[in-house]
Amino acid sequence: MTTIPTPDYKDIEKAHKIIAPYIHRTPVLTCRSIDEMLDTTIFFKCENFQKVGAFKFRGATHAIKQLSKAELKKGVTTHSSGNHAQALSLAAKMMNVPAYIVMPRTAPDIKVKAVKGYGAEITFCEPTLDAREETLKEVQKETGATFIHPYNNYNVICGQGTVAKELLEDYPDLDAVIAPVGGGGLLSGTAITTKHFNHDIKVFAGEPKNADDAFRSFEQGVLIPSMHPNTIADGLLTSLSPLTFRIIRENVDDIFTTKEENIIKAMRMIWERMKIIVEPSAAVPLAAIIENRYSFKGKKIGMILSGGNVQLDKLPF
Amino acid sequence: MTTIPTPDYKDIEKAHKIIAPYIHRTPVLTCRSIDEMLDTTIFFKCENFQKVGAFKFRGATHAIKQLSKAELKKGVTTHSSGNHAQALSLAAKMMNVPAYIVMPRTAPDIKVKAVKGYGAEITFCEPTLDAREETLKEVQKETGATFIHPYNNYNVICGQGTVAKELLEDYPDLDAVIAPVGGGGLLSGTAITTKHFNHDIKVFAGEPKNADDAFRSFEQGVLIPSMHPNTIADGLLTSLSPLTFRIIRENVDDIFTTKEENIIKAMRMIWERMKIIVEPSAAVPLAAIIENRYSFKGKKIGMILSGGNVQLDKLPF
Repeated sequence: MTTIPTPDYKDIEKAHKIIAPYIHRTPVLTCRSIDEMLDTTIFFKCENFQKVGAFKFRGATHAIKQLSKAELKKGVTTHSSGNHAQALSLAAKMMNVPAYIVMPRTAPDIKVKAVKGYGAEITFCEPTLDAREETLKEVQKETGATFIHPYNNYNVICGQGTVAKELLEDYPDLDAVIAPVGGGGLLSGTAITTKHFNHDIKVFAGEPKNADDAFRSFEQGVLIPSMHPNTIADGLLTSLSPLTFRIIRENVDDIFTTKEENIIKAMRMIWERMKIIVEPSAAVPLAAIIENRYSFKGKKIGMILSGGNVQLDKLPF
Repeated sequence: MTTIPTPDYKDIEKAHKIIAPYIHRTPVLTCRSIDEMLDTTIFFKCENFQKVGAFKFRGATHAIKQLSKAELKKGVTTHSSGNHAQALSLAAKMMNVPAYIVMPRTAPDIKVKAVKGYGAEITFCEPTLDAREETLKEVQKETGATFIHPYNNYNVICGQGTVAKELLEDYPDLDAVIAPVGGGGLLSGTAITTKHFNHDIKVFAGEPKNADDAFRSFEQGVLIPSMHPNTIADGLLTSLSPLTFRIIRENVDDIFTTKEENIIKAMRMIWERMKIIVEPSAAVPLAAIIENRYSFKGKKIGMILSGGNVQLDKLPF
């Protein structure tokens, strides 16, 4: 197994130039009432307004743009039931590239429809990691498509790093940037970018207590995979990869965990006060601040709202 | 009874200067997937992001700013269970003026809390128009406060006209502007402003079929009050007033009605596709377009999203 090198900021800068024509430069919002409640100043980077409703579109687009003509012809593939599947499908569609998505047969109908709507070919499998990986191998064998991993991928991380780039270009004067952590692709890109802009800006992550593999790996200095994670933040069930763990260890200042009830509270706060829709995973950094108020008091914080894909008929309130 | 004169655009321009330091200049969003579905280009003016979550804050602020020192001392009053109550309360608070709000005792707890949170004094009454008006008179007698009507008020309409002013400053090249109609304050201000900018831009309204007093008044040329309106668009239950009816007859090109199921469909479309929260009343113009697709085909439409105050535990989906 070859080690994937760590992206540096120059690659993120290049990635931004490459994907700029395809992505939205998302707005940064503020909310006085949340600031007053928490005694902070938060700049919310709204990737819920990104194409497909999540930052994942950046990394997927960048990864496809790096493929050779021969590779493009054979297409791309991944296994995912979440935002990465939609992101890769739309990015592939926009570049006229075939996309083959392996999805667990238990994936919500709405997500299956979205992926189909982008013209991707779906192969269903049993809802276990083994089945997903095995099915993916079969699809690759059949089609010759390139596997685009959702986060253990150099080019994907470069794409995700463009979120913090835009945020810091708009608001360079921050004390900290905080992002949610699941597999660690967004957090890795965020950390590389932020530390390049200004090493004094702290990089924090929010993580559900019920899926705290990143927190434990970070504390103990060893990659500990997630065991039976069970959280409403369904985008954060995955474990860090060797690549993202390495980047996070080197560049992240701290990881804050949060209880489920605070994730729901934070999500509701954003919906009610800001009138925008975020998915539970995107509310985890605000939940982490609610739960660790003292650490953030009086600070100027850039917060990445990672996505806005929720099933409206299955809300937690 | 003296007739209230019709505001002209110069007064709306003045109003904008007066209220600009207090209000948000709200963003205008677009949504490619909704445009594709409806074969239109819609510019959504997001008053759901306005202070108190609704355009009403503009009119209330302007009305208070017109009061004399002696009047300000005695404060302002209104009867409302909706956005106008919150708008008047916050505007009064920001200007250090007492506010007395008459609310039906059936008003949702969340709205009572919001009004209290802005420091207004609440007097509860029976949930009938008679009881509301009588209680208001008593409050006025006791306090000497000035009654700020939610829409049958010259200065309120001037304030509401600033929404379309901002929209047309940003996007002058529209074929039509569409707003919801309840009491007609927003629609009146929108019509005066739009026709001043360019008489060729059509001014349309969306109205629930189940509360179609404006549609019937407009068609028949006589003011017909709303009888037992019953719609999910709880901001549009009120009837036109003599003042708003006059302005609407003279300046509005057409009123489109819409079924309840399309209001819910439009609301869901905005939530899911745009990732923003709008209340049912704000979704009525989009519902009107869904229901009258042919009339809007290929057009560039400015649409006013009037507010975003919903009870998250009572959603229609």
